[in-house]
Amino acid sequence: MFAQIERIEPPFWYAGMYNPKLQIMFYGKNIAQFLVTVSNSIKITNVKRTENPNYLFVTIDTKNVKATECIFTFKDSNKKAFTQNYSLKQRRENSAQRLSYDSSDMMYLLMPDRFSNGNPNNDSDTSTTEKYNRELPEGRHGGDIQGIINHLDYIKELGATTLWITPLCEDNEAVYSYHTYAQTDVYKIDPRYGTNEDYARLAAEIHQKNLKLVMDYVTNHWGLQHWMMKDLPTQDWIHLFENFTQTNHRRTVIHDTNASKIDTKICMDGWFAPSMPDLNQANSLVLNYLTQNAIWWIEYANLDGLRVDTYNYADPEAIAKWTKAITDEYPNFNIVGEISMRDHAQLSYWQKDSPIGKIQNFNSYLPSLMDFILSDALLTIFNEDGNWETGMIRIYNNFANDFLFPNVNNLLIFAENHDTQRINHVYKNDIGKYKMTMSLLATVRGIPQLYYGSEVGMAGNKDNGGDAAIRQDFPGGWEGDAINAFTKEARTQGQNEYFDFTSKLFNWRKNKSVLHFGKMTHYIPEDNTYVYFRYNATDPSVSELAEQSVMVLFNNSSDTKTLKTNRFAENIGNYKTGKDVITEKIIDVTNEIFMDAKSVLILELR
Amino acid sequence: MFAQIERIEPPFWYAGMYNPKLQIMFYGKNIAQFLVTVSNSIKITNVKRTENPNYLFVTIDTKNVKATECIFTFKDSNKKAFTQNYSLKQRRENSAQRLSYDSSDMMYLLMPDRFSNGNPNNDSDTSTTEKYNRELPEGRHGGDIQGIINHLDYIKELGATTLWITPLCEDNEAVYSYHTYAQTDVYKIDPRYGTNEDYARLAAEIHQKNLKLVMDYVTNHWGLQHWMMKDLPTQDWIHLFENFTQTNHRRTVIHDTNASKIDTKICMDGWFAPSMPDLNQANSLVLNYLTQNAIWWIEYANLDGLRVDTYNYADPEAIAKWTKAITDEYPNFNIVGEISMRDHAQLSYWQKDSPIGKIQNFNSYLPSLMDFILSDALLTIFNEDGNWETGMIRIYNNFANDFLFPNVNNLLIFAENHDTQRINHVYKNDIGKYKMTMSLLATVRGIPQLYYGSEVGMAGNKDNGGDAAIRQDFPGGWEGDAINAFTKEARTQGQNEYFDFTSKLFNWRKNKSVLHFGKMTHYIPEDNTYVYFRYNATDPSVSELAEQSVMVLFNNSSDTKTLKTNRFAENIGNYKTGKDVITEKIIDVTNEIFMDAKSVLILELR
Repeated sequence: MFAQIERIEPPFWYAGMYNPKLQIMFYGKNIAQFLVTVSNSIKITNVKRTENPNYLFVTIDTKNVKATECIFTFKDSNKKAFTQNYSLKQRRENSAQRLSYDSSDMMYLLMPDRFSNGNPNNDSDTSTTEKYNRELPEGRHGGDIQGIINHLDYIKELGATTLWITPLCEDNEAVYSYHTYAQTDVYKIDPRYGTNEDYARLAAEIHQKNLKLVMDYVTNHWGLQHWMMKDLPTQDWIHLFENFTQTNHRRTVIHDTNASKIDTKICMDGWFAPSMPDLNQANSLVLNYLTQNAIWWIEYANLDGLRVDTYNYADPEAIAKWTKAITDEYPNFNIVGEISMRDHAQLSYWQKDSPIGKIQNFNSYLPSLMDFILSDALLTIFNEDGNWETGMIRIYNNFANDFLFPNVNNLLIFAENHDTQRINHVYKNDIGKYKMTMSLLATVRGIPQLYYGSEVGMAGNKDNGGDAAIRQDFPGGWEGDAINAFTKEARTQGQNEYFDFTSKLFNWRKNKSVLHFGKMTHYIPEDNTYVYFRYNATDPSVSELAEQSVMVLFNNSSDTKTLKTNRFAENIGNYKTGKDVITEKIIDVTNEIFMDAKSVLILELR
Repeated sequence: MFAQIERIEPPFWYAGMYNPKLQIMFYGKNIAQFLVTVSNSIKITNVKRTENPNYLFVTIDTKNVKATECIFTFKDSNKKAFTQNYSLKQRRENSAQRLSYDSSDMMYLLMPDRFSNGNPNNDSDTSTTEKYNRELPEGRHGGDIQGIINHLDYIKELGATTLWITPLCEDNEAVYSYHTYAQTDVYKIDPRYGTNEDYARLAAEIHQKNLKLVMDYVTNHWGLQHWMMKDLPTQDWIHLFENFTQTNHRRTVIHDTNASKIDTKICMDGWFAPSMPDLNQANSLVLNYLTQNAIWWIEYANLDGLRVDTYNYADPEAIAKWTKAITDEYPNFNIVGEISMRDHAQLSYWQKDSPIGKIQNFNSYLPSLMDFILSDALLTIFNEDGNWETGMIRIYNNFANDFLFPNVNNLLIFAENHDTQRINHVYKNDIGKYKMTMSLLATVRGIPQLYYGSEVGMAGNKDNGGDAAIRQDFPGGWEGDAINAFTKEARTQGQNEYFDFTSKLFNWRKNKSVLHFGKMTHYIPEDNTYVYFRYNATDPSVSELAEQSVMVLFNNSSDTKTLKTNRFAENIGNYKTGKDVITEKIIDVTNEIFMDAKSVLILELR
């Protein structure tokens, strides 16, 4: 690279994209003074200069251009010239038509710094400020990409089919950098996790095992130490306030016809945290940058999907364009957005083709949503008595609003994640309640997501220890750990009880299309019991799905219950027995079903 | 009436209706064996016989028929014949185009048995079982139509413009008949309230005073003692079960795509109470009967609107037809339905042209909804501290979902009614909290509804005394009452404080179009304070509305507050002062506004 140019982003690109326009950012001292041309008969359709002379945004049209090395020539008014090579690479076969994750998958969420330290040599790095300190709950603990690669078999054995790994790009904050949501170079894996090549290797290993990789993408903000913050391309690249202004988090302003302008501005433009400058996606240079960056990672690492952080903290129209641009490139690609709205209509608003969004002529183009309303219920109900509004009715009420969503199968369903309390804390490591939680996630509509460690009983109280308490190191992820929960032999008996149940349940789910795409009928909870069925369409054209019917029964009361099955006649039909998927016992369903207190039964009807 | 015929319903009808078809029910022993013809060249378009020979449903076409007495001739196979006169009366001028109530009104809800006993001679009646017993909290206390007529000036003085009176038709249950929701003859005013003529006179007196009358109509059920129950026209006139089956009240089944058939059946067809047989509106004879009965009362008593009890306990498609038939007859007529859903999307579902109903191709045609979600909040917030989800934010969140409704101005807003706790109980007669409650109802969008007696401090605890505790006799409604709260002189000082505030507030509201139809901007609550503005469209064509702007400030915290007004610049604009509508003091709004703890300010900006 000629000295004049310090950065080129994207660093390379791919030929044959759906959108042939590519906006390359050249960064270097006074680069804007140069005139630019390019080889291979490629057309430059736009050259954009900003108030900062160190940036040049050059848009080329790659339509019908084959993979090639092309050459940019920069010439200034003194005819001083230099050239810069740029690669348009060959895409993988069927890259555009790649498949993605869906409700046939189970997603395992892990935080790389806290999962396993596979390479102790990269625990600290000269290029990044925060150094290894495992003593510090909020410090860097050394977990890395190699640690994940080392335990893919464990994840697969658990029954997961997809990995959601929290962000891996460089986060060069001086403290609290382990969560990596304050990224400082979005084209570079943080060296404490590994290299870009390591990330590509992780993806390859994942695919080798028939698993899928979901990248956690952050569109709303970067880290304060992001290299661009020291030399902003435009003053409106980020949202600047006279004094530090935090978002008010009241994202109802987006659709609230009564909202004030000032509240809306602070909500959308205020910063998530002092360390996280709020990006201005309404600036088309920013939007292009983010769009191309996401697509670059999809191509480079061969990703199977995205999870998008703080999705609706970004400018709604702009983030919708970003999402549409990506799904236009990859029509089968799934993207799940973090939409932490607690009202079903407000949640539905954000799903592609939502009838709620349509009220305001808004279409987010976002295929999948994180269902925090179900999560709230799952973190509550198993400690509750059953009354008009408490206990299992919260779950029933959740599914009673399915009609508001254009695609309920594409909701990400979870009890917990890296921001919530842990179920094993809320339920005080009562394994019965754990089993009820997992059984529900495994058998209702949507894409179940588990959070690392709970499957071996990990707990921790966010109210006492803050986020660090729910993001502890996976036992056995570090050499010398007292317990290694990655192997059956080394796990405690208690850990095996958690793991074996989870593994049996989700491995069983893998091939049960009736759970992935089947219909649901549920019955109004009585005495804190709740019964539902999953079953297939009776459409004879879907014969391979036919004759599958699963009955799920919860007894969330503190007493044993004997449920008369005649109430469920419309779903039991001629079925006589059900096979308990955990114990494999055969249970008569023609008359009544006995249930222990605080228990769940999943029955394959026969 | 010839002895063969015991009842004819409707007892008469009107010429020139939008729907020219009239289905007359003739009831009498073996009436079905007769052939029927009618005079005046009127066409009989349908004669319907049921399995019960004592009913004959005769449909005539009244198109182009002028007001007249016509004669029905009944002839049996033995040529035995008799005749029956039937009136088609002249409608009032502009009957079809009558106006109705809207958000410019304030609705006063009262229960006639508990408001005032204007005629002690009708406290008991030979034709009805339950006799006067004022000692019994759930007994008949003797309140009546004359009692209401006697106090219309009081109601008007309060600032009300519309009366919603709970049902007045005969309820001949042996006990608990005072609430009158278990009606036994829907063409006849209960004799303990008066006569049909008294009701018509009440309407005339109301209109004389420029007030409006809203009838409380019950479509879902009748009383078990209804005359028809002893000799059902058809077996499916009501929903019959082997054993008494109560509704499960889970009306989410209506839109829940996962609901079971049996839950749906029990919800919709189960009875509201053992004394209230559930009508089968899906039977077109029942539906016609209910539709014509409602229209008959509108014409007969010259009604200004309806309130419909338990609206979505009825068959949804049928009740929508009922509503459409009435609003087709009276295009400006308002009907508010009791829709006690606690989710905004589920509530919106039931409003005419709802985008939520549209998801399932459902249109209720119901113009107005009772907003129980706001009521829940108003019965809670003024006892709450302000946190992320508590205190004034509940109100803010309520209005944040306005976009879900096709017509927010046509929501009936209230803190309490005859089924909820009373505010003066919840707020322990803290008049500051009462003032905050009323101030909110008077200044936000929608039709404010007050519940009788609260305006003079009436309380009573439903949790202890049941419904009777919230439906006590209005003090002064009975001769010899210790206190007469109907007159300023006789009211206690405390009662006058309640009354004077309420009267000043709602009389002020009467001509404030900005409150009836203006826009709203609200600001995210901070420290349990909440500020909003009502203002007019800047559209110059609505000049008579221009230059009205009202600022409303709540301090629901327990500390005094000084609110900086620069935050509200977008609404304050060039206004310099505000006139406090209660104290009439002028307050500077250019810098900051001081507020007492637990207080409200309503300022007309100038």
